[in-house]
Amino acid sequence: MMKIGILGTGMVGKTIGSKLIELGHEVKMGSRIAGNEKAAEWVKQNGSAAAEGTFEDAAAFGEIVFNCTAGAVSLEALEMAGAENLNGKILIDVANPLMRGELPSLVPSLSNTTSLSEEIQRAYPEVKVVKTLNTMHCNVMVNPLLVPGEHDVFICGDEKDAKAKVKEILGWFGWQSSVDLGGLTAARSTEMLSILWMPLFSLYSSPNFNLKVMVGK
Amino acid sequence: MMKIGILGTGMVGKTIGSKLIELGHEVKMGSRIAGNEKAAEWVKQNGSAAAEGTFEDAAAFGEIVFNCTAGAVSLEALEMAGAENLNGKILIDVANPLMRGELPSLVPSLSNTTSLSEEIQRAYPEVKVVKTLNTMHCNVMVNPLLVPGEHDVFICGDEKDAKAKVKEILGWFGWQSSVDLGGLTAARSTEMLSILWMPLFSLYSSPNFNLKVMVGK
Repeated sequence: MMKIGILGTGMVGKTIGSKLIELGHEVKMGSRIAGNEKAAEWVKQNGSAAAEGTFEDAAAFGEIVFNCTAGAVSLEALEMAGAENLNGKILIDVANPLMRGELPSLVPSLSNTTSLSEEIQRAYPEVKVVKTLNTMHCNVMVNPLLVPGEHDVFICGDEKDAKAKVKEILGWFGWQSSVDLGGLTAARSTEMLSILWMPLFSLYSSPNFNLKVMVGK
Repeated sequence: MMKIGILGTGMVGKTIGSKLIELGHEVKMGSRIAGNEKAAEWVKQNGSAAAEGTFEDAAAFGEIVFNCTAGAVSLEALEMAGAENLNGKILIDVANPLMRGELPSLVPSLSNTTSLSEEIQRAYPEVKVVKTLNTMHCNVMVNPLLVPGEHDVFICGDEKDAKAKVKEILGWFGWQSSVDLGGLTAARSTEMLSILWMPLFSLYSSPNFNLKVMVGK
């Protein structure tokens, strides 16, 4: 049993939080203000292992912390969480630095020649940032069986031990393996995959899809 | 039998050109200057159905034209090819607007809130731009069997008839189906996939890989 902090009380945070509670862990979700309606509702639905508070509360609580905030404001949320509550911990970064518009795009200062994960790592050098799960719908993140057949979850990060621990957590969610893209710079490419998600969602009229890398010799 | 123009005499252009000749078509490859060494060598290897010349020559020759130039300079190459030689024709855009660096990135003015294909379409409104094949190594483009199992080629474009014709050409190359992402704005997402190519290539130490979209209900 672990204590896990989740930053962000949107659909992604709630879905991951509920799954972790189902798996027997204690979860505290954090947002800008403690006691917000969505977070309070989620706590009510998830029983005594669920709690909520500020970003700071959630980060302080977690032995491991998930970043499930909107990528465009993740750095701001992490500042509220506080380096002192994050240092030395694994931060599983599930966010994408999306800009809302008629068509989705990535925040220029957080993409292409950098990535959200790299900017988080730069701002918090003592945090072990691992990027994963950000290329699929949150229901698939915690239940890969929603998509039939074999398909892949990408992972990258600069700390080997942290990645090994996150792979174990992916296993809890049902991922029997992952595609390890190496260091955190690979987050550039997986965050870009979030832009492919939209036309695929339009095409299949379902969020239950994912990518598989097929490899020859 | 068709007359096909190929802009660009790099590995991608030569690989596609040779495949088209093998399939019984006539191909003229174009570059900045007629008679360049790489193009002349390719013509020698590919027999009487192969020819080379300037971008202008290749565009004028083709009933259909492939853009296999480096994406960062494609607009310049197309200007040399000349609107009068391209108008009314299908342009199959295989290029990615990559910037070379320690790590690959996309040319900012040709990505994220736009794409190379969209900028080509904007500059040449009477050309039928179709984006496809740009998400994999050129050997896989013309020989999908290099990667075992089912895997996908993405296609997008604003002209339905042009896309239908290009799907037929994909069939010549061995693609029994394609994932139609809709209009040309989807090229933003498939051009971004070129950035994922690099870490995957590092991981598998082989260019013979490709993506498959797995879909549930």
